[in-house]
Amino acid sequence: MNRKELAERVRRELPTTRWEHTLRVMETAKELADRYQADCDQAELAALLHDYCKFWPKERMKHIIHTYQLPKDLLEHHAELWHAFVGAEVVREELGVNDPDVLNAIRYHTSGRPHMSLLERVIFLADYIEPGRRFPGVDEVRELARKSLDQAVLKSLDNTLVFLIQKGHKVYPLTLAARNEMVDHVHQSRLKEESL
Amino acid sequence: MNRKELAERVRRELPTTRWEHTLRVMETAKELADRYQADCDQAELAALLHDYCKFWPKERMKHIIHTYQLPKDLLEHHAELWHAFVGAEVVREELGVNDPDVLNAIRYHTSGRPHMSLLERVIFLADYIEPGRRFPGVDEVRELARKSLDQAVLKSLDNTLVFLIQKGHKVYPLTLAARNEMVDHVHQSRLKEESL
Repeated sequence: MNRKELAERVRRELPTTRWEHTLRVMETAKELADRYQADCDQAELAALLHDYCKFWPKERMKHIIHTYQLPKDLLEHHAELWHAFVGAEVVREELGVNDPDVLNAIRYHTSGRPHMSLLERVIFLADYIEPGRRFPGVDEVRELARKSLDQAVLKSLDNTLVFLIQKGHKVYPLTLAARNEMVDHVHQSRLKEESL
Repeated sequence: MNRKELAERVRRELPTTRWEHTLRVMETAKELADRYQADCDQAELAALLHDYCKFWPKERMKHIIHTYQLPKDLLEHHAELWHAFVGAEVVREELGVNDPDVLNAIRYHTSGRPHMSLLERVIFLADYIEPGRRFPGVDEVRELARKSLDQAVLKSLDNTLVFLIQKGHKVYPLTLAARNEMVDHVHQSRLKEESL
């Protein structure tokens, strides 16, 4: 399937506002890929596909979680997380996308995970800061994104955790693990910079 | 060892201000035990002993973590957590305290854990709200503690998580697990109340 056909498939799965969000994530992902030497083509593809299953009914996603033996603990957490894990399986099966890095960028774009690849971090952040996003703290993350991909990812993970806690929602343990690892990673990078 | 001898042993391990904190935790724990039908004697004992190793040198605590094969991931997290896990082993070995519920109340008084016993919740909360504590949000938790032990524990876990995240510290996964479980537990309790 060529890019145009893929785009048409995605567009059909999404309401217009979400399709417009997807287009903005694609633009932002390409900018970030350009800034941080990630592969622009992979970034554009992962961004295009990242919300493919966002509006699927819960039952349909639950079925995929069981069929593909995705992490069972997803079912104990907010359904908002499901579309990412489910989406990675579905775009491989239905759309024939096989690049593992692209699939992981889709899979972890909502939860994050420890040791995210460059592409995963680009998609995670692009989804958080695309220009249509309006929530407290997003401008600070946009500012950080100009100088450090990792500091921006860390700040967006921090904001997400605090938001979920203050709303009384449960937090997926993988998101905390992603954030703890990024704390260490950013700390190590600073030490390295200081020693240069 | 009788209670007076135990108290003398604890007093010798702590600087005066921390000993005074311990006395206040004992008072608060007894009040909470009384309010929520926990065992006052166990609560007083666990409170007396909860900070026994608080001022031990890191190396000494590290040695105990290795010797007793305590969770290795403690070493990747803030040393503030260590004294609780180490303390539980040491008060058993050195002071001959064998009550498993008392030992668990000591062990989990800083991290929390999912499915804390009544005594564990009493000690966790008493340590958080004793009248000497001064930090943002503590008065709200004191207020909650008058009507619901679990809602107060949940709020103190929430506050601790947000504090650690905003300070840029890593969060021990067990603390998130404790908080996620408490979200479910408080939610279930509310549903049960509403259905009565």
